[in-house]
Amino acid sequence: MALGEFDLIDKYFRPPVRRAALGGGDDCALLVPTPGMQLAVSTDLLVEGRHFLSTVAPDRLGHKALAVNLSDLAACGAEPLAFTLSLSLPRAEAAFLAPFSAGLLALAEQHDIELVGGDTTAGPLTIGITVFGEVPEGLALLRSGAMPGDDVWVSGCLGDARLALEVFRGHAALPGEAFTAVREAMERPQPRVALGQALRGVATSAIDLSDGLLGDLAHIRRRSRVGATLWLETLPRSAALDAMPEALQRECLLAGGDDYELLFTAPPSAAEAVRAAGLASGTPVTRIGCIEPAAIGMRVFCETHGSEPLDLSAYAGFDHFKS
Amino acid sequence: MALGEFDLIDKYFRPPVRRAALGGGDDCALLVPTPGMQLAVSTDLLVEGRHFLSTVAPDRLGHKALAVNLSDLAACGAEPLAFTLSLSLPRAEAAFLAPFSAGLLALAEQHDIELVGGDTTAGPLTIGITVFGEVPEGLALLRSGAMPGDDVWVSGCLGDARLALEVFRGHAALPGEAFTAVREAMERPQPRVALGQALRGVATSAIDLSDGLLGDLAHIRRRSRVGATLWLETLPRSAALDAMPEALQRECLLAGGDDYELLFTAPPSAAEAVRAAGLASGTPVTRIGCIEPAAIGMRVFCETHGSEPLDLSAYAGFDHFKS
Repeated sequence: MALGEFDLIDKYFRPPVRRAALGGGDDCALLVPTPGMQLAVSTDLLVEGRHFLSTVAPDRLGHKALAVNLSDLAACGAEPLAFTLSLSLPRAEAAFLAPFSAGLLALAEQHDIELVGGDTTAGPLTIGITVFGEVPEGLALLRSGAMPGDDVWVSGCLGDARLALEVFRGHAALPGEAFTAVREAMERPQPRVALGQALRGVATSAIDLSDGLLGDLAHIRRRSRVGATLWLETLPRSAALDAMPEALQRECLLAGGDDYELLFTAPPSAAEAVRAAGLASGTPVTRIGCIEPAAIGMRVFCETHGSEPLDLSAYAGFDHFKS
Repeated sequence: MALGEFDLIDKYFRPPVRRAALGGGDDCALLVPTPGMQLAVSTDLLVEGRHFLSTVAPDRLGHKALAVNLSDLAACGAEPLAFTLSLSLPRAEAAFLAPFSAGLLALAEQHDIELVGGDTTAGPLTIGITVFGEVPEGLALLRSGAMPGDDVWVSGCLGDARLALEVFRGHAALPGEAFTAVREAMERPQPRVALGQALRGVATSAIDLSDGLLGDLAHIRRRSRVGATLWLETLPRSAALDAMPEALQRECLLAGGDDYELLFTAPPSAAEAVRAAGLASGTPVTRIGCIEPAAIGMRVFCETHGSEPLDLSAYAGFDHFKS
């Protein structure tokens, strides 16, 4: 017998509430932000077939649904507090819900945040999450603060999630162990929450990489009214991606999407502080280019001292209604 | 040519931001709650075919999607502040988006709240909204405070939304003007935001009616560990519903769903304060029963002095996975 909605919410989505003044189960969740802090809010909707494959294991889906939202908090330098979950699914089945909630709540536990409310309904598999975090007033990392002369940095490695997708599509092949690693990058991204907080007061702008390096850098460029130069050879990549043909590497690195790394800018004088933030948060950080005046637009050179920029017309930012 | 995601978000969903420290367009929205206030958060997911008919006019859908969320804030006694919107839709079409955003933003304007963030993606038509409000610490209306001896109250009229649905289903017929009125109740509910705030410190418990009177009263009963008696003859209803056969009236009144009225409790000594809150907020309020010890369970008598309770087995609370 299918569980009813209320039973199901109770069974899988009611962890003990600690920090929130009141958790789920009432009309609203009540949160008490710390005095002097701003509340940072982000929301994402994941749709089957668009944001995840129907073959993904439910525990990984639960992890990823929360991870992509935490990544937005990371990009603001916010400390995560709580989240709400809206779930539309065809049937209330324990075979899906038990591992889904386990994956979701394990990541929540890892970041010490609570599920404070939500909504469950029958319908096409769709996952809506809204996350709440807090950040000291005036210290949120924005997209709008990049200045010409700033360095451009990125955390972790780029392109592995896209490489995994290409393997699934049959466009690339990888030995088992390497495939496991890139699949992990695609299905279990680790939001750079600690790095984001460590970059408060250090980075001049930040964004998380969800649509691809060039597409997301374009948001910083537009908000900050600047141009940028990147050096292809400096883009951090896994050994698996490094072994791929050059054209595929470029596609994965520049337009891969789903990386959930932080892309950020900082003046050259802050380079040591950036490296210290990376060390303190246990996150690799790499300098990949510099911010230019707006008139320069977007350039990518193969080498740091290259003279001939790549043709970027093939690497548009991912757009859910164009692709 | 279809608009791209970013263009579309800009075009239809970027009203000027006033109160929020920072609106949409960055990784997170930043909100600054007033000191001493708790933040109230509620989230709802509306799925086509489940929560609304594909025939509904887009402006009414926009209105309703926000209204049902504001109704949750009303049930907490919170003052609305802001909201986020996650929208999955098959195609980015102005013919849908222009009226949808107009209906949504008109209601937002009416309640002086701002759209501070969101997410738009291709997929089945699904609308996810998270609303934020604030309420003085300790004054939020909860489901858990009802006490035996309290009166049970309800705002407005019950059952019109369900009656409209029965007309759509061909199970009932109404003359044009009456149909327009009940259809308005179904498609353009008015959240009882002002009444909710006026009931702070007056009501002992509250909930908004989305699943039907008996189903939602069961939430108060469970959270407050109480029973309840209702009097059918006292349930407020429109002239259109009053003209329907008795069985249909009972179904609409007791289990109709989609009313978005407030159901609340208050001690008899607060009856004048309740009526004053109704007057101050321009909202009709009606006493429909009383809270009983838990052992009494749930009883509905046809008349205030009735002795034979109705058989309630036919009126289960609406459950998205059972119905």
